[in-house]
Amino acid sequence: MYSKKISNAVIKRLPRYHRYLGELLENQVTRISSKELGDRMGVTASQIRQDLNNFGGFGQQGYGYKVEYLYNEISQLLGLGKKYNVIVVGAGNLGQALANYLDFEKSGFVIKALFDVNPRLVGLFVRGIEVMDMDNIKVFVKNNNIDIAMLTLPKANASQIAVELVSYGIKGIWNFAPVNLEISDDSVVVENVHLFESLITLAYIIKNEEDPHTDDMYSMEIQ
Amino acid sequence: MYSKKISNAVIKRLPRYHRYLGELLENQVTRISSKELGDRMGVTASQIRQDLNNFGGFGQQGYGYKVEYLYNEISQLLGLGKKYNVIVVGAGNLGQALANYLDFEKSGFVIKALFDVNPRLVGLFVRGIEVMDMDNIKVFVKNNNIDIAMLTLPKANASQIAVELVSYGIKGIWNFAPVNLEISDDSVVVENVHLFESLITLAYIIKNEEDPHTDDMYSMEIQ
Repeated sequence: MYSKKISNAVIKRLPRYHRYLGELLENQVTRISSKELGDRMGVTASQIRQDLNNFGGFGQQGYGYKVEYLYNEISQLLGLGKKYNVIVVGAGNLGQALANYLDFEKSGFVIKALFDVNPRLVGLFVRGIEVMDMDNIKVFVKNNNIDIAMLTLPKANASQIAVELVSYGIKGIWNFAPVNLEISDDSVVVENVHLFESLITLAYIIKNEEDPHTDDMYSMEIQ
Repeated sequence: MYSKKISNAVIKRLPRYHRYLGELLENQVTRISSKELGDRMGVTASQIRQDLNNFGGFGQQGYGYKVEYLYNEISQLLGLGKKYNVIVVGAGNLGQALANYLDFEKSGFVIKALFDVNPRLVGLFVRGIEVMDMDNIKVFVKNNNIDIAMLTLPKANASQIAVELVSYGIKGIWNFAPVNLEISDDSVVVENVHLFESLITLAYIIKNEEDPHTDDMYSMEIQ
């Protein structure tokens, strides 16, 4: 791995580079210039060059970057060469959608089981993965070296279950519940997907486009 | 509404304030000090005071902010007093999860129909809302003044459908497809939910916590 320091700002852009380079790979693009990549990503060519130099991605004049090489370097830097054992907690529509999403598995996130309290869901299989009773979660997490829990529980239950998962040894929680999990163990990583905030952002921008006298506030960042 | 200018940085924090204040309201908290709110949100009391002064939320010394008043002011500023007509395009698990999420409706996002090409889904009802055939989408959008499309299509179809939706008059697209929609109409707002990037971020931080010699790179922002 790299021993040089990479700035926070660059680190935060890695998942975006990963996505764009992945798209290029899928479209059989083998090389790309900093200008063309910058145009696609909405940043300057100079920004691209500065960023990618951090990952050993030195483009050649008139030749461009090697897409696959850069994609692999960034994947490795992001920890995507690794395999993660994952459970989905909450097997409703959202939990099932996550379990069905094959791209996760291709990138090393292997879903081992879903869990739910609903007896109508327990025993079902989603893409061949069993929905188990919540009563079994403690033993399952411990016996299967589960790294990550994808949490799709209602707000009311999410925090308590999260605390329990942490006590069973979970390292990371991908939280979809619209609540701030109160995890006291600093070594556990919580990444929140605040869907409602994203929807509100959309509404805010639509409203301001319709309402020109507040145009000075049209500023919310669209990723 | 407000005629004073509010900085971009403050605007971006509005949905977060909205969420925290909403939680306080649900927990029957009527007043809160800048220190306490700051502690919950992980920002300084001084930051809270600066931000909230923008919305007429002048707290009183030793008395705190009125939670409901601030919540309502911020809701209005975000355009949440308005009603938005919404369709869900793609009625798979994720689309159904979105249609089932009652909090959206409570905030004015009224889901009028779901659409899918899959004949096994067409004709079903999700929370009383019909799944319609994609063939009907053009007429439906035009006749029902649809503002927002929640797009949960596979990557391969998302861009083309998005372009069609824009031509039918959609104002905003909430995009869950892992692809950059190429919308030429600048007045259409696209808000992306890049789930995979969020998951990658989680993996990245877990990896770095396990790998102390790269600790200098532990920096990715956890929202």
